[in-house]
Amino acid sequence: MAGSPSRAAGRRLQLPLLCLFLQGATAVLFAVFVRYNHKTDAALWHRSNHSNADNEFYFRYPSFQDVHAMVFVGFGFLMVFLQRYGFSSVGFTFLLAAFALQWSTLVQGFLHSFHGGHIHVGVERPQLEKSKHRQGSVYHSDLFAMIGTIFLWIFWPSFNAALTALGAGQHRTALNTYYSLAASTLGTFALSALVGEDGRLDMVHIQNAALAGGVVVGTSSEMMLTPFGALAAGFLAGTVSTLGYKFFTPILESKFKVQDTCGVHNLHGMPGVLGALLGVLVAGLATHEAYGDGLESVFPLIAEGQRSATSQAMHQLFGLFVTLMFASVGGGLGGLLLKLPFLDSPPDSQHYEDQVHWQVPGEHEDKAQRPLRVEEADTQA
Amino acid sequence: MAGSPSRAAGRRLQLPLLCLFLQGATAVLFAVFVRYNHKTDAALWHRSNHSNADNEFYFRYPSFQDVHAMVFVGFGFLMVFLQRYGFSSVGFTFLLAAFALQWSTLVQGFLHSFHGGHIHVGVERPQLEKSKHRQGSVYHSDLFAMIGTIFLWIFWPSFNAALTALGAGQHRTALNTYYSLAASTLGTFALSALVGEDGRLDMVHIQNAALAGGVVVGTSSEMMLTPFGALAAGFLAGTVSTLGYKFFTPILESKFKVQDTCGVHNLHGMPGVLGALLGVLVAGLATHEAYGDGLESVFPLIAEGQRSATSQAMHQLFGLFVTLMFASVGGGLGGLLLKLPFLDSPPDSQHYEDQVHWQVPGEHEDKAQRPLRVEEADTQA
Amino acid sequence: MAGSPSRAAGRRLQLPLLCLFLQGATAVLFAVFVRYNHKTDAALWHRSNHSNADNEFYFRYPSFQDVHAMVFVGFGFLMVFLQRYGFSSVGFTFLLAAFALQWSTLVQGFLHSFHGGHIHVGVERPQLEKSKHRQGSVYHSDLFAMIGTIFLWIFWPSFNAALTALGAGQHRTALNTYYSLAASTLGTFALSALVGEDGRLDMVHIQNAALAGGVVVGTSSEMMLTPFGALAAGFLAGTVSTLGYKFFTPILESKFKVQDTCGVHNLHGMPGVLGALLGVLVAGLATHEAYGDGLESVFPLIAEGQRSATSQAMHQLFGLFVTLMFASVGGGLGGLLLKLPFLDSPPDSQHYEDQVHWQVPGEHEDKAQRPLRVEEADTQA
Repeated sequence: MAGSPSRAAGRRLQLPLLCLFLQGATAVLFAVFVRYNHKTDAALWHRSNHSNADNEFYFRYPSFQDVHAMVFVGFGFLMVFLQRYGFSSVGFTFLLAAFALQWSTLVQGFLHSFHGGHIHVGVERPQLEKSKHRQGSVYHSDLFAMIGTIFLWIFWPSFNAALTALGAGQHRTALNTYYSLAASTLGTFALSALVGEDGRLDMVHIQNAALAGGVVVGTSSEMMLTPFGALAAGFLAGTVSTLGYKFFTPILESKFKVQDTCGVHNLHGMPGVLGALLGVLVAGLATHEAYGDGLESVFPLIAEGQRSATSQAMHQLFGLFVTLMFASVGGGLGGLLLKLPFLDSPPDSQHYEDQVHWQVPGEHEDKAQRPLRVEEADTQA
Repeated sequence: MAGSPSRAAGRRLQLPLLCLFLQGATAVLFAVFVRYNHKTDAALWHRSNHSNADNEFYFRYPSFQDVHAMVFVGFGFLMVFLQRYGFSSVGFTFLLAAFALQWSTLVQGFLHSFHGGHIHVGVERPQLEKSKHRQGSVYHSDLFAMIGTIFLWIFWPSFNAALTALGAGQHRTALNTYYSLAASTLGTFALSALVGEDGRLDMVHIQNAALAGGVVVGTSSEMMLTPFGALAAGFLAGTVSTLGYKFFTPILESKFKVQDTCGVHNLHGMPGVLGALLGVLVAGLATHEAYGDGLESVFPLIAEGQRSATSQAMHQLFGLFVTLMFASVGGGLGGLLLKLPFLDSPPDSQHYEDQVHWQVPGEHEDKAQRPLRVEEADTQA
Repeated sequence: MAGSPSRAAGRRLQLPLLCLFLQGATAVLFAVFVRYNHKTDAALWHRSNHSNADNEFYFRYPSFQDVHAMVFVGFGFLMVFLQRYGFSSVGFTFLLAAFALQWSTLVQGFLHSFHGGHIHVGVERPQLEKSKHRQGSVYHSDLFAMIGTIFLWIFWPSFNAALTALGAGQHRTALNTYYSLAASTLGTFALSALVGEDGRLDMVHIQNAALAGGVVVGTSSEMMLTPFGALAAGFLAGTVSTLGYKFFTPILESKFKVQDTCGVHNLHGMPGVLGALLGVLVAGLATHEAYGDGLESVFPLIAEGQRSATSQAMHQLFGLFVTLMFASVGGGLGGLLLKLPFLDSPPDSQHYEDQVHWQVPGEHEDKAQRPLRVEEADTQA
């Protein structure tokens, strides 16, 4: 499985060199650009002007921990359902998140934008072709994956609320997200049983589509969506996402040769597009009556009279197309890049296989499956 | 295992229809009754009157996440110890909690009462009769269940404190609950080893009775129980609960044909009754000296002179009997309801079996245990 | 396995008597010494002086839950990688933490020191000699251990920040710890792949050395370490710790007959000493210019002119030697104590074996693997 000696030697250096290069480059950029801010630097901070408004570090909702628990536990364990890819799922999410934590500081500093943007780094991107049999899950792996699902569910309201202004907007975002998640959970259970064999539930649907409610209100949860609107949107998203796992993913695999192991299309893709359209609709309905003084924090340009609600809606619709274009071109380039021969990506037969990257303990699933191979041998004999 | 075709067809529609009906009815009620409150509605919220007292959403102890982590992770994983019921345990707790989250909004609105009341919805009662062999646990399942136990332990102080007034009452509730939980943990380890074979600990005791300390101070943790009192109460509860699992549950099963899989009686029942009596005692001892100004928030009627401490204690004792009556009658009616033939509850042989409701992956425990059967066959041969 | 009957009888009483004695003694001390403080006692707390500064219980960063999640989940699950010691790892951490929670109240009261000091009680050291084969891990156990690692990673900044003064110092501590942890994670992945067979990662390195960044800034994270300094320190710690697991632990076992199952030396030992030296260096560089008004909260004696920065550095260096002496003498005495015959420690062959202390369910790993042997036997036959 290790390939030729020179290849193994090359692989031995690949990950270390990548880590060393990234960490080294980041450290240099930190040394040049990053300084403590006035709330963190001992010399710049004065007890006297430590007003209540400066306390947001300790008190802030969502806290650092909220977001980290979501990324590390949530996304890390969500993919553990893969039969022999548990180490890689948890381990590489861990590595990527640790790097992203540093990088986000730099990006944040350069863009003067909020730090939440890095969140999806750890999530996206096994897209492969064969070795499909290892996509199978095992009972306990599915339970681990439910740890991931539950942490994502619990902290998704924090995630959506992280970008909104303090006050009513943050209340509204968290509440709308909770309601939408709750409704998408019920929608997922309903649809999963409806389309399942003998009316049985599919764990993959529950693990993923139940979260579609968090995605679908990503744009509109800060708006005056109304609690009923959040329920309706969440239910629709849970339904669409479940149907995607059931009917669309198999077509994607058989016709387009695309393996969407984590159902990114069904959980993030379709509900994301739906959510953008929902945002267009709700933005188009925005009035001074419905938002009052709050209009300024949600739609500042409408509040200042520089834009009509319809124009805001059109801008958002245009944003959806820009996003889709970036995603298509970026994804295509990423795919081409990974096919470059010098990157030495593992052959298709080694996908979803921890042993490529990890020393796997002797009591690996492997042994539990030895009989299977024995049986295969029997059939061949 | 699927039963006759028409039954299977019936079952296929059962869960979807239930989910659709509940979600539909809830959505209609939301559309008619639920509105954002003044802290959440953009139009009603003004930055100018956004006083510090209004910040409780962000800063509040316990947070939304505290309670959700307790319900979803805690109760969801606590029952995973069941050998072939892990999907159902985590999955259906998830479903029920998602529904309860919405329903609690409605109940809260109608009763003008605190939102914590839904908490027990996801917990109580599988009560069955046969298929007892599947109650067995497996090593890793027990470790999963300990995730549940630990989350419940960590967040039980938040749970008890959620209903109390801000300030000293909330401090006291959290501290008393911590002390009681700590003592019940030591009591459980002591008693479990004492009554165990060869002095060995039983994982079921640790997973459950260690939490009895949280239950037993449910009523009195806001009162001036004293730290010593909290330790004593917790230790007693851990002891009683462990003895219940060891000696009472087997009698319940063999004599009364009641299967209390999760030990609801031992963890919530007996410690709950003990806790109510403890509350009666501590309420009866309440004086103006002991509580000072704080009497008003803990016992408002005593503080206003409308009730004596003894009378308060008698009211609470009466409350215990009312609760027990509701529990008995409600439980009895629930049991009768579930026996109605048209509800088509699965036959006894299919209890504690994920495959009734879930598509279970091929590498199920089932296969891991196939050898056992082989060996049994061998011995018979 | 149970030994002679009288020994079994002795063991049956050991743990219960220990628990009862400790809980009893603690309860007496609580009754004599522990009282609610003015923020918790109903009579001493007045709504009128419930100033904003008194709110720190609810709002405080880190919260009770942060530290408990770190100890119970983090340390409890970190050791679950041991093949047949999962119950003991989670269970006994739970027991010790529950006891430590009470004891810390007493110690805190007596020393007027912060309550965080108990934190390491649950962590340190199985140190044994044989039964080494049970140190093997299984695939799912390693995934459980990653739950522990991730919780420790997420909450280590809270842990370091718990002892610092509110304000800029706490900001700085949390940020430095995050950066150091992030860099040690990258360092660990780099080194683990570099020294691994075929360039493969070792799960033990990731589970442990990735946390070395939290240890190495334990002393200096409150100081003006600079973000770059935190990255450099963390990367160094991750590197050194990984090399320790790879090259030093085997020597420790083969030459010195010391089994450091959890790699305490590699995770806490070497990075701890490095961290103390780093603290000496950064303290020696402290100037009024770099710290401004903040000097008073980080180095009060320097701020008051009673000590020079160099003298502070020498004091800290001396502190390192005192700590090392205490650790050596204390560890030696502890080892001698455990060898006393009347303590009846289990024979070497029973180490890392849950069955000594726990009733282990029938479907133990053991049995799950029995079938393999049967089938292998078949193939041979």
